[in-house]
Formats: sequence, structure tokens, C-alpha cells
Amino acid sequence: MSDSNSVAPETSLTPDPRPLIPVFSTVALLGLGLMGGSLGLALKERGLAGRVIGYARTPETRRAALDRGIADAVVDRVDAAVEGADLVVLGAPLLAYEPLLRAALPSLSPGCIVTDLGSAKAQAVETCESILEGSGAVFVGGHPMTGSEESGPRAARPDLYIGAPWCLTPTHRTPDEALSKVRQLTEAVGSWVLVLSPEEHDLAVAASSHVPHLAAVALVNTLRSVSRQTPAAPRLAAGGFRDTTRVASGSPEMWRDICLSNRESLLRVLKEYREALSALERAVEDGDAGQLMEMLGQAKEFRDQTLKKRSPS
Amino acid sequence: MSDSNSVAPETSLTPDPRPLIPVFSTVALLGLGLMGGSLGLALKERGLAGRVIGYARTPETRRAALDRGIADAVVDRVDAAVEGADLVVLGAPLLAYEPLLRAALPSLSPGCIVTDLGSAKAQAVETCESILEGSGAVFVGGHPMTGSEESGPRAARPDLYIGAPWCLTPTHRTPDEALSKVRQLTEAVGSWVLVLSPEEHDLAVAASSHVPHLAAVALVNTLRSVSRQTPAAPRLAAGGFRDTTRVASGSPEMWRDICLSNRESLLRVLKEYREALSALERAVEDGDAGQLMEMLGQAKEFRDQTLKKRSPS
Repeated sequence: MSDSNSVAPETSLTPDPRPLIPVFSTVALLGLGLMGGSLGLALKERGLAGRVIGYARTPETRRAALDRGIADAVVDRVDAAVEGADLVVLGAPLLAYEPLLRAALPSLSPGCIVTDLGSAKAQAVETCESILEGSGAVFVGGHPMTGSEESGPRAARPDLYIGAPWCLTPTHRTPDEALSKVRQLTEAVGSWVLVLSPEEHDLAVAASSHVPHLAAVALVNTLRSVSRQTPAAPRLAAGGFRDTTRVASGSPEMWRDICLSNRESLLRVLKEYREALSALERAVEDGDAGQLMEMLGQAKEFRDQTLKKRSPS
Repeated sequence: MSDSNSVAPETSLTPDPRPLIPVFSTVALLGLGLMGGSLGLALKERGLAGRVIGYARTPETRRAALDRGIADAVVDRVDAAVEGADLVVLGAPLLAYEPLLRAALPSLSPGCIVTDLGSAKAQAVETCESILEGSGAVFVGGHPMTGSEESGPRAARPDLYIGAPWCLTPTHRTPDEALSKVRQLTEAVGSWVLVLSPEEHDLAVAASSHVPHLAAVALVNTLRSVSRQTPAAPRLAAGGFRDTTRVASGSPEMWRDICLSNRESLLRVLKEYREALSALERAVEDGDAGQLMEMLGQAKEFRDQTLKKRSPS
């Protein structure tokens, strides 16, 4: 990754000190959960949008979003939400993008930018670009790498995006100007930007997040199976097990969708993972102390260096 | 596991309030690192041994152990250390047990109990029982499930064992009385005891610690390999990756030895792990949302219940 592709904060997580002026005149948030809701709160707190219009499917979410001040107005129709917007943000589950965008399409203003907050990109970007083709609206894929164990508009916070990496995934169809405006917005809410192709993004998150998730789930299910033969096994699970499998306590629904939305890259990285595991297994099987030592040492070195260098830590 | 096999503290981690009287008259510690050294400090602080004699291979360790007050006397010969001892504790790496015990054998008192602090049991117990056969001394395998990132006598602490599970792994050759005396000692330094067969112990630690370790190492080595194609990948490694792979920053030397010493159970559980992983992979490959959801949900439920129930938490 070249330096021009990322801007990491140099010192701290404090909000960007630049004077904040509206980046968009009307922002439509389609989805008002943790991610969309937090974006709404940040936009309003920092005056980054002339007006924020929210859409959510359920009356409970719409009510909560209004209570929390996530948007200036909240509506129950997609077309009404996007009417006149110069930015539309898809803040809904990945599998809902297609129906949402098709409902929005007839009401999108020419020149409107559509972006999203989803955690898998290649498939989503392809879908959105196809739907928008010829409409005069353009798509810029985005993935803010932040979150919380909680969800919904009640969990939204204006500082959720401060200090977080935010991937933007343009393609050959993305106008530079649209990319640059979305980038301006993400930096104005406190994130730092990484520009990657959708495919690079998906491989990177498969390796850094999705495969680790499945690895943790498989570890828990293995302990579960071993504990049928040795009921004391779970009582020996100490801090190492607790940390290694923490993510396996996350929402099964959310992770099911993530896995299915990033299927191709996930399978590719899972294959590499199985190979890395088999190499360790062979060394144990052969009693090959030298080989084992090399792989354990390699992992320690790479992890210690990588997590030290990553900014912000 | 039946209740009679374990005694978990009912309320807190505070030291056992029972009046402490010497459990053994002379304890020989063979190995004065973190584990052996901490045991020495606890024995002396609580008056649990009439006399503690330490042995270590290097002059530096012997000097540090004396400085720290780990033993009443520190010697440079195994036979001198064990002379007259009624308890001998192997606190050295697993692969050093055999030479240590052979050196000790001619000087062991009849009726002496030998125990150890090692993290893999079947092979170690088999080795020690064979060496001691017919000597009049008996072996009781032990594994205190505690530790630290640090090592050596300078890292030793008298409270290391407080609140920790301590596995004891008797066989048909272990006299009840010897088991009961070792148990008394481990409880007197603040641990709670789990009695398991060596084989059950090894399966349990393979599932709760050794396979999770190799899984984490393989995750780091996978990210390393993916980052050759997608150099930005490590920058997307957030809190989930950090936790899931924390153990992979542990000592390669120590983990090499643990893996090789618990080879058989490790390979058995690794096979189960590969199967659990393949089941997830198949569900992703088939786009089988229901199957995926079931496995993710199963893991969440088992983890949430297990780690809640484990005492002390």
C-alpha cells in the first residue's frame, strides 16, 4: 500500500481540528442502526450536512432515531428519504442493499453520490454499480472498521468513527470527485482513510477478521465436542481460551451475513489457513522441533511487529 | 467430572483461612524458575515445609533464587538437593525430567513423594513412574494452571498459585495417601484441585489451550501470507484479531516443547478442530445460511455458558 492511499493520524484520536463546514447539503441515511445512527449523530454534531433525513423499516427504529436526534426528519418511505439528497448512505444489512437501492432509484437526484457502510465489498459494489448504471447517480463503496457489541439506534454514538480506519473501495467506474467528497466526509467525522480495490479489501478483511472469526467458532465447537469425552475440559479453559475465542460470542445473525457476503475471499483465505494449520500439524506429527520452532517464531515476530506498527494502536 | 474430583473456592481468591502447618518436612525444588520459584516462596511464606532446598542448573538462577528467598539452601547437585527430602518437585522443562530423576534416584528417601508442575501429563507420568518403579519413592503428576508472560526466579511470586486450578493426575500406581498429601499442599498454597487421569488431562488441555495456540499461530501466518498479495491487510487487523491471536506472541521455545510433549492428544484434538472448521467451510461454500447459523449459534451458546460457569472467573 502506497502512502498516498492512507492517512493515519499522526498523534492521537482527537477530532480533526479543521474548521468544519457542510460537505453535503442533504444526506439520506437508509438504515438508522448503530452505524447509520452514529453517522447521523456525528454529521449533526459537527455540522457536516445541511440536513439529515433518515429512513428505517420499523416504527420502533424510526421513533428511537428521532428521540436520539440522529436525523432532522425520519420517514417511512425510501423514495421520500432520498428525494433531493446529494448523499445517500446505505446503512442496512448487505443483503438489503438491492431492494433498498431499487426503491430509491426513481427518486435519486442526478449527480447524487451513494455510499455504504458494509463489511464486504466486491459483491455489494458490483450490485450497486449495476443498479445505478445510467442513472446519473454514482456509487462509492465504504467500510468503516468500527462497531460495538451493541446494535440499534439506542447504541449510536457521535464518536463511534473517531480514530477508526475507514476503507473506501473505488472501481474504474468511480469518479475521482465523488471519491474525494466521501473521503472528506469520513475524515471530518474523525476516521482515517484507506483506499483499496473491493477485491483487496475483501481479502484483507477475510484474513484479518472473517477467518479469525470462523477459527474461533471452530475452537469453541471443538472444546464442546471434547467435553463430551472429558467433561472437565471446559474448566481448564483459562485466559488464553477466553481471548482466543472472544469473537465467537458475537451475533450469529450478523456473522452469518458477513460470511455469505464475502464468500469468495473467505473461501480463498480459509484454504490458506487450512494449509498453515496443516504445516503445524505435520511438524507435530513428525516431532520436527526445528520446523515447529520456525513457524512459532515467524508468527510471534510478524504479530509483534504488525500490531506495534498499526496506527492508531 | 464428579463433584468429589474438584474443590472450587466458594467465594473469593483470598488465601485459605485454615491454620497452616508444615505438610512436608523437607521439600526439594528441582528447578527454580517462575513455577518452582513461586512454589518455594509460597511454601516459605506460609510455613508449609520445614525446610526448602533448591537445585538449579545455572549459577545465575541459583544466585537469584537465594536473593529472592525462594529456598533455605540452594545447591548445584541434584543428589544433594533430594537427600532426606519427603517431597521432590520437578519444576523444570518436561524434556529435562528424565535426566533429573535419574540423577536423583540413588539419593531419594524411601517413601518420598515426587510431583511435577508440567503442562502435559501422559508421557511425563509414564516416564517418571517407570524410573521410580521399585525405588520406594512414588510419583503424583501435577499441573498448576497458572503462569505469566515472564519467566525465571526474578518473576516468581508467592501468590502465583492463589485461585488457580491445579490438576493432579494419579494412575493405578499412585497411593491414595501420596495423592492426598500433594493435594493438601496445593490447596494450602491457594489453588483448587481437579483430579483427572493423565489422558483426560492431556485431551482437556489440548482442547482448551494447545490447539487454540496453534490455531492462533496459523491465523498470524495466514495474515502474513495474505499481506504479500494485499499489503494493507495487517492495517485492517483490529481488536478482534489482536485478541484472537494474543497467545501467538508467547515464547516459541516453550510452546514447541508443550506441543511435542502432548503430541498424541494434540493430534487427536487437531483432527476434531479441522473437522469443525471444514463444517463451517462447507456451509459457506454451499451458501447454507441455516447450517452456518446453527454452528455460529452453538459456539456462542457454549462459550457464553462455559466461561460464565467456570470458577473462579
